Amino acid sequence: MIIQLQQGIPAELKERILQVVQGIGFKANEVVTQEGHYLVGIGKKEFDIRTLGQLPGVADIHRVSDEYKLISRKWRVEPTQIDLGDGVLIGEGNFSVMAGPCSIESERQIELVVEHLKANDVKIMRGGVFKPRSSPYAFRGLGIDGLKMFHRICHENGIKIITEVMQVSQIEDMINYVDVFQVGARNSQNFNLLDALGEAQKPVLLKRGISGTLEELLQAAEYIFSNGNEKIMLCERGIRSYENAYRNVLDLNAVPVLKAKSHLPVIVDPSHGIGLRDHVEPMALAAVMAGADGVIYETHQKPEEAFSDGQQTLNFKESERLINRMRQAYALRESF
Amino acid sequence: MIIQLQQGIPAELKERILQVVQGIGFKANEVVTQEGHYLVGIGKKEFDIRTLGQLPGVADIHRVSDEYKLISRKWRVEPTQIDLGDGVLIGEGNFSVMAGPCSIESERQIELVVEHLKANDVKIMRGGVFKPRSSPYAFRGLGIDGLKMFHRICHENGIKIITEVMQVSQIEDMINYVDVFQVGARNSQNFNLLDALGEAQKPVLLKRGISGTLEELLQAAEYIFSNGNEKIMLCERGIRSYENAYRNVLDLNAVPVLKAKSHLPVIVDPSHGIGLRDHVEPMALAAVMAGADGVIYETHQKPEEAFSDGQQTLNFKESERLINRMRQAYALRESF
Amino acid sequence: MIIQLQQGIPAELKERILQVVQGIGFKANEVVTQEGHYLVGIGKKEFDIRTLGQLPGVADIHRVSDEYKLISRKWRVEPTQIDLGDGVLIGEGNFSVMAGPCSIESERQIELVVEHLKANDVKIMRGGVFKPRSSPYAFRGLGIDGLKMFHRICHENGIKIITEVMQVSQIEDMINYVDVFQVGARNSQNFNLLDALGEAQKPVLLKRGISGTLEELLQAAEYIFSNGNEKIMLCERGIRSYENAYRNVLDLNAVPVLKAKSHLPVIVDPSHGIGLRDHVEPMALAAVMAGADGVIYETHQKPEEAFSDGQQTLNFKESERLINRMRQAYALRESF
Amino acid sequence: MIIQLQQGIPAELKERILQVVQGIGFKANEVVTQEGHYLVGIGKKEFDIRTLGQLPGVADIHRVSDEYKLISRKWRVEPTQIDLGDGVLIGEGNFSVMAGPCSIESERQIELVVEHLKANDVKIMRGGVFKPRSSPYAFRGLGIDGLKMFHRICHENGIKIITEVMQVSQIEDMINYVDVFQVGARNSQNFNLLDALGEAQKPVLLKRGISGTLEELLQAAEYIFSNGNEKIMLCERGIRSYENAYRNVLDLNAVPVLKAKSHLPVIVDPSHGIGLRDHVEPMALAAVMAGADGVIYETHQKPEEAFSDGQQTLNFKESERLINRMRQAYALRESF
Repeated sequence: MIIQLQQGIPAELKERILQVVQGIGFKANEVVTQEGHYLVGIGKKEFDIRTLGQLPGVADIHRVSDEYKLISRKWRVEPTQIDLGDGVLIGEGNFSVMAGPCSIESERQIELVVEHLKANDVKIMRGGVFKPRSSPYAFRGLGIDGLKMFHRICHENGIKIITEVMQVSQIEDMINYVDVFQVGARNSQNFNLLDALGEAQKPVLLKRGISGTLEELLQAAEYIFSNGNEKIMLCERGIRSYENAYRNVLDLNAVPVLKAKSHLPVIVDPSHGIGLRDHVEPMALAAVMAGADGVIYETHQKPEEAFSDGQQTLNFKESERLINRMRQAYALRESF
Repeated sequence: MIIQLQQGIPAELKERILQVVQGIGFKANEVVTQEGHYLVGIGKKEFDIRTLGQLPGVADIHRVSDEYKLISRKWRVEPTQIDLGDGVLIGEGNFSVMAGPCSIESERQIELVVEHLKANDVKIMRGGVFKPRSSPYAFRGLGIDGLKMFHRICHENGIKIITEVMQVSQIEDMINYVDVFQVGARNSQNFNLLDALGEAQKPVLLKRGISGTLEELLQAAEYIFSNGNEKIMLCERGIRSYENAYRNVLDLNAVPVLKAKSHLPVIVDPSHGIGLRDHVEPMALAAVMAGADGVIYETHQKPEEAFSDGQQTLNFKESERLINRMRQAYALRESF
Repeated sequence: MIIQLQQGIPAELKERILQVVQGIGFKANEVVTQEGHYLVGIGKKEFDIRTLGQLPGVADIHRVSDEYKLISRKWRVEPTQIDLGDGVLIGEGNFSVMAGPCSIESERQIELVVEHLKANDVKIMRGGVFKPRSSPYAFRGLGIDGLKMFHRICHENGIKIITEVMQVSQIEDMINYVDVFQVGARNSQNFNLLDALGEAQKPVLLKRGISGTLEELLQAAEYIFSNGNEKIMLCERGIRSYENAYRNVLDLNAVPVLKAKSHLPVIVDPSHGIGLRDHVEPMALAAVMAGADGVIYETHQKPEEAFSDGQQTLNFKESERLINRMRQAYALRESF
Repeated sequence: MIIQLQQGIPAELKERILQVVQGIGFKANEVVTQEGHYLVGIGKKEFDIRTLGQLPGVADIHRVSDEYKLISRKWRVEPTQIDLGDGVLIGEGNFSVMAGPCSIESERQIELVVEHLKANDVKIMRGGVFKPRSSPYAFRGLGIDGLKMFHRICHENGIKIITEVMQVSQIEDMINYVDVFQVGARNSQNFNLLDALGEAQKPVLLKRGISGTLEELLQAAEYIFSNGNEKIMLCERGIRSYENAYRNVLDLNAVPVLKAKSHLPVIVDPSHGIGLRDHVEPMALAAVMAGADGVIYETHQKPEEAFSDGQQTLNFKESERLINRMRQAYALRESF
């Protein structure tokens, strides 16, 4: 069950509600976020919801039988919108384009991408400075200095930054230079990282695991929310399968199903999804029609020279065409 | 390699070409279809393609290194269009809607569906009379009598029929009552059936296997073509995965990749793909944007009373909305 | 529910039992096999089992809630043993070795394998004459003439034959030359073939589908049993996965689980399972310890010259070592 | 390529070797472990290995074309043996049993398990104090205080401890109370954790990812080795699949293949693998025959009362039987 408490509830009232919850045999978890104050009750006993609903200090109460609670649409019917500042909104009524290189490589590269994004009215740039790599001998990114450079140039140009965080100890160093923390597929069940990102309260884009179920993705999001952070986007990025014709199977089925199960925005990554440059566009357009709130993809001034993931990266001409077409598809979808 | 022979090539010329092909160490397979006469050479030796290309009787010659040959786009760059008669065309420049119940149940049911299709200008009705069922004790369809009834009503109303064939011995009984034979996922590597459908020369819609690779699907299509039948549609219908949130993972990645690898039309089945009525529409629209040449889905006057697959079947109102939206999405795609 | 009828039950008694079964709202399927006479009742109504159990003509009655019935261990607790004649028994108390080439190639090849089997006291030879091949241009086996040759030589040497049947129309031609029909992974849900093999009443080895669930395998076996044939072996042969380090994932988990769910013998095919010659032995030994009733594997006088599957085929020296070690492992298991 | 340097190599000699390596276009990574001093050269250029092999200071040199290097059997043919002290050896010539509860729950529970292990001459106890849980509201373990209690009791009884570490910051707190760090499936590509465990130099048991490839597992082990720690065990614990009849598919194919690819010991976890108490024993015995160096499984004085994973946990009687049978199976395997 979820009990939304009244803003500024006095300690005694909260204590009394807690006692009632525990009295009916539930374990109560107190959650304070940027936007609200909740008690999440975990238990299976039958109870009369009115006994709780009528208590002073209770703003709202809902039963939620899913394993995830606070991120469930059963409780919060209105879709969540995330405000990155300066009028950059994600979710419900907005279609967000997030583009940029796999890895941040140089000042010149950032400038070229920023110029391309501005020319196409794109407000969010992606780019990795800490890169998870299968091999310990591969390029692992420019690190915190790369991030500062990335931030400086984007900041001067009114562009927001999304970049991957790999471990708890990086959060503090990164937090002032980041607009959205990305959690990669390999860390989608790194529960300590999720806890810490809940506390950090910056917006988070959470990728589905390499073979992650939607249930696991939603529970991972619950980790972040229940630690204090409501600003979460879910990201479909392809699942592992037996099929060798593409890098991953971009699973667009996840889009309508996640939208139905949760109030959080859903972003799709067709670059890692299909992993083949020629086919990023149709998959991105399909994602729009499937109901995605945004698309994140890889673009680079010269994909064939990119430090990583060049085979799935669009050049600026392809990127521009994609942006235009996605916006037309989104307009059609909104007209329905 | 594929050698297209001139129409009406004299036997001696063909024989001479055969000898040259075998002389360079290739095994030659002669293929005669509704539309052409080919030699498919199988081998790995290096050879000078001009020696063959200049032989009298050779209309065209191509190297094709894929395991599949005649269905490859490397050889035939122009997309294939299939003519069902009466102006019903599938592929390139057409968007085909195929709709109807999972199982044919009664005369009244067929009439209601036909009426719905006509009202929405849909030309092809799906419906099973031989049903593959996991359990031997389940309803297995109305059989050949059901098919005759199905054919009679559709024929009177200018509607084409697509229905599943499960074994070789059914082909002869069914062929006069069918416009498109459907090969189900469980028979996608029933090679004897594929051989026989090649000989039968009716159009075939070939579904991807339950965990079929695209390579296997394309080779299955090659079975049909190499037995004499060029009228083949490939169908993505969802693959099996670890994810329990939906029936299958409708794999839209297959659409652009199949279109790039083969000249055959690609049809998508979102009903079996995601298997959840509420989400058939977004997946169908996504399929259109991904490049599908058509969509096949389940509709029924009362889905909750359908003999099978009710949970993934649209009612007529939902079906009508879907048809309209798919056509708008297709128009947008064509405008790109 | 399963009602075992008394042998030679008079028609009136059977009719009366049928009426009672239908009277409580069940659909009754009559099944007559080599070994018994049953009514399988399909329904979900509650009923008092004694009303049925006390009817004259009823030998035994059981509730079975699984989708499969007659092959369930809930009903028949004793494991099934299959007698191939001449003292060759499969299941419970026997460990069966079935070995031979992927494809039957020549008289000389058969003789060499037979000699190897006899020297090692192996009673069953495998070998394909109808080969399912992904490509229509690949070698598809020697066909019925190859089978006759195969049968003649084995028959003269007291060796039983197991070989794959691919379609209904082959059964009649093959039945006199075969001791066990094998149903391949690609035909594991070819329901017409399963029906026909039920009627044919020869022993059948039924392979799990390429991504087949155990539930599907068990229901496929139910097709055979319910059409009149109790002589069925289940075969684990590897499932498709994302892992490229081997051909398939030989799923030994299936062995104890199938043995617990069904009374049928379970055979394991490590050759197709892991698909790597060097690792066939450890997987075969593991299969024995997991509880398999037998192992079927590929051996050839010169694996590197085999027409098909050479990379997973043992030479005779490796095969002999494997046989000896499997027998020791089986003896240890039996001692537990 | 791997260059093993002579022990105590002077800095100038090392520098000169480095220059030669870089001179032929390779990137050189210096690795110092508990047991050796290496240069790992990454590059694809052709070179004459003798030019390097003859340099002073070079003890040995090998080409290794795999993505993983130091853990490859191509370089180190002899299997690695890991010494936990007090005569407890893992790998080659030893069969290691590691048993204990999923979660450490209480002093009494530890005492009971320790008593059971001692009675059966088992030297290593497993037990979690930091538990990765899908839901943020589930029991997450007793933490560092639980570990200290766990360590005290085991230490007094001559039992070694293996327990899971979830993040870098826990290593320092845990290191004095742990004999083997376990990396769980969800952290198998937590590269920062792997780096840190390389530096920590305690033995590590590294589990395969939830859908991890063997290649990924081997590269994860390379992270640990290349950061200074040679004491690594690889652990097969089941992979995710479409099959719902068991928790995971315990993939025993991994055992012989990992043993062939790497010199590291391979441990199998049948409890998480199949996840069904009744079938842990056959899978464990199968693992022994497949070539495992050890088995780790869950046992508890009262599995039905365990805080977690009770459905896959053996009671002490089942555990004792399993230990005895595994040792007999291992003795048979060693006799081959």
